[in-house]
Amino acid sequence: VDLRVVLVAPRNPLNIGAAARAMANFGFTTLRLVNPYELAFREARSAVGAASILAAAEEFGSLAQAVGDCELVAGATAAARRQLQHPLHRLEAGAQLIRNQPGPVALVFGSEKFGLSNEDMSHCHWLMRIPTADFNLSMNLGQAVAVCLYELIREPGAQPQPGRRKPAKASDIEQITRLLLETLTESGYLNPVTAESSEQKIRRLVRRFDIAAEDAPMILGILRQALWRFRAPRA
Amino acid sequence: VDLRVVLVAPRNPLNIGAAARAMANFGFTTLRLVNPYELAFREARSAVGAASILAAAEEFGSLAQAVGDCELVAGATAAARRQLQHPLHRLEAGAQLIRNQPGPVALVFGSEKFGLSNEDMSHCHWLMRIPTADFNLSMNLGQAVAVCLYELIREPGAQPQPGRRKPAKASDIEQITRLLLETLTESGYLNPVTAESSEQKIRRLVRRFDIAAEDAPMILGILRQALWRFRAPRA
Repeated sequence: VDLRVVLVAPRNPLNIGAAARAMANFGFTTLRLVNPYELAFREARSAVGAASILAAAEEFGSLAQAVGDCELVAGATAAARRQLQHPLHRLEAGAQLIRNQPGPVALVFGSEKFGLSNEDMSHCHWLMRIPTADFNLSMNLGQAVAVCLYELIREPGAQPQPGRRKPAKASDIEQITRLLLETLTESGYLNPVTAESSEQKIRRLVRRFDIAAEDAPMILGILRQALWRFRAPRA
Repeated sequence: VDLRVVLVAPRNPLNIGAAARAMANFGFTTLRLVNPYELAFREARSAVGAASILAAAEEFGSLAQAVGDCELVAGATAAARRQLQHPLHRLEAGAQLIRNQPGPVALVFGSEKFGLSNEDMSHCHWLMRIPTADFNLSMNLGQAVAVCLYELIREPGAQPQPGRRKPAKASDIEQITRLLLETLTESGYLNPVTAESSEQKIRRLVRRFDIAAEDAPMILGILRQALWRFRAPRA
C-alpha cells in the first residue's frame, strides 16, 4: 500500500514519536501532520528509533492539503460517536479495502483529545473502527496507529510453525524407556509385583514427552548416571 | 480466552498504564507484574482509563510464580535475537493457538530495555513474534501489548459494511439527469448540434455518482433553482 499516515493536531510529542515508531516497525514511511502543536513536533523529532520518518514528516495547514494527492481517504476511530454520516467499517474489513487500493491512501487519525471532528470526517471516504470492547474508552493515539498498521501488514494465511525440532526415533525412545524402568526399579519406585502394568504406564508417559532427537543423548546420559549411582557399591 | 497479561520488570509508568489501557480497550482484565520498579507501578496506578485493571494488578517476585496457574505460557517478542531454543510463531498463528487453549493462558512481555531474557523464555512453551519489518527495531511495550491483544480479538470474517445509504431509485436518477441536461443546455455547456452523444455522457456521469435516495431531493432542488435562475427574465 502506498500509505500516508496523517495525524490531525497531535498535542503530545510522545504520541507523535510512538506513531513514527509504529510506522518504522511495520515498514511505512510517509508521515504527515496537520497543525501539530509546534513544541510537540519539535520534541518528537528527537524520539528514538524513527528519526528518519520524523525528519521527513511534512506539516500541513489543513487536512484537505494533507490528503490532496490521495485517491482514498480513510479515517480511523475507536469510538462510535458522531459517525452516522459516514460508512463505518470494522478495521479488519477497512484494511482489506485499503490494501486493494492501487493509488495513494491517507489513513487519518484525530487529535488525542477530541478524535476526528465532523469537519475532519467530511474529508474521508469512510471511517474504520478499531473493534474495541468499550465504545466510550478511546484508544491511545500511538497504540491506535500501531494496531491499524499491524492490520495492514498481517498475513491472513499464517500457520503455526511446526516445532523445528526433529523427533527422536522410536528406538531411542525405547532405549530411554528401558533405562528409565531400570532406574525406577533400582530406586524402589517400581514394585516388582505390579511391574507389568506399571511398565506400560511408564512407556506411555515417555511417549507423551515428545522427546526431540537432539535431546535423547542428554536424557540417556542422565539415566545412565543415575543407574550407575544406584548400582555402585556404597562407600 | 482466559488471559493473564504478564509484564516482566517494567520500568516506565507510561508503559504500564498503556498496557492496562490496551487491555481495557480490548476487553481483558488480568494484569500481572513481575518485579516492577516500585515507583513506576505506583505512578501507573494513577493512569487514566484503566484504573480498575491497574488497581487489581498483582505483583509477583518471579515469572514462575506469575504464570504458575496457567496451562499455556506464550512469550511475545518483536526481535529475532536469542530465539533459537524455542518454537517461534508469527503473531497471527500464535494468537490462533492461544484462542484454541481452553485453560488459562499467560502472555508474557519482557522489559522495555532488554525484552525477554533467556531465563524468562525458559518458562515459555513457545514465543510469538510480532511481524515487524525490521528485526533490530524493538516495539514500544504499550504498542506491542495493544497489537497482540487486538490480534486475539480480531474477527477474521469481518466484511466491509455495505454503505448504509439506500441508493436513489432509477426514476429519481433520471429526473436528476433530465434537469441537469436542461440546466447545461441553458448554461450553454451543451451544444445542441452534438447533443445526443453529450446526453449519453452526462447520463453515465450521473450514474457514476451513486446518488443516495436521501440526497436526491437536495440535488433536484439545486438544479431547479439553477434552471429557474437561467430562465428568469433579467432585471
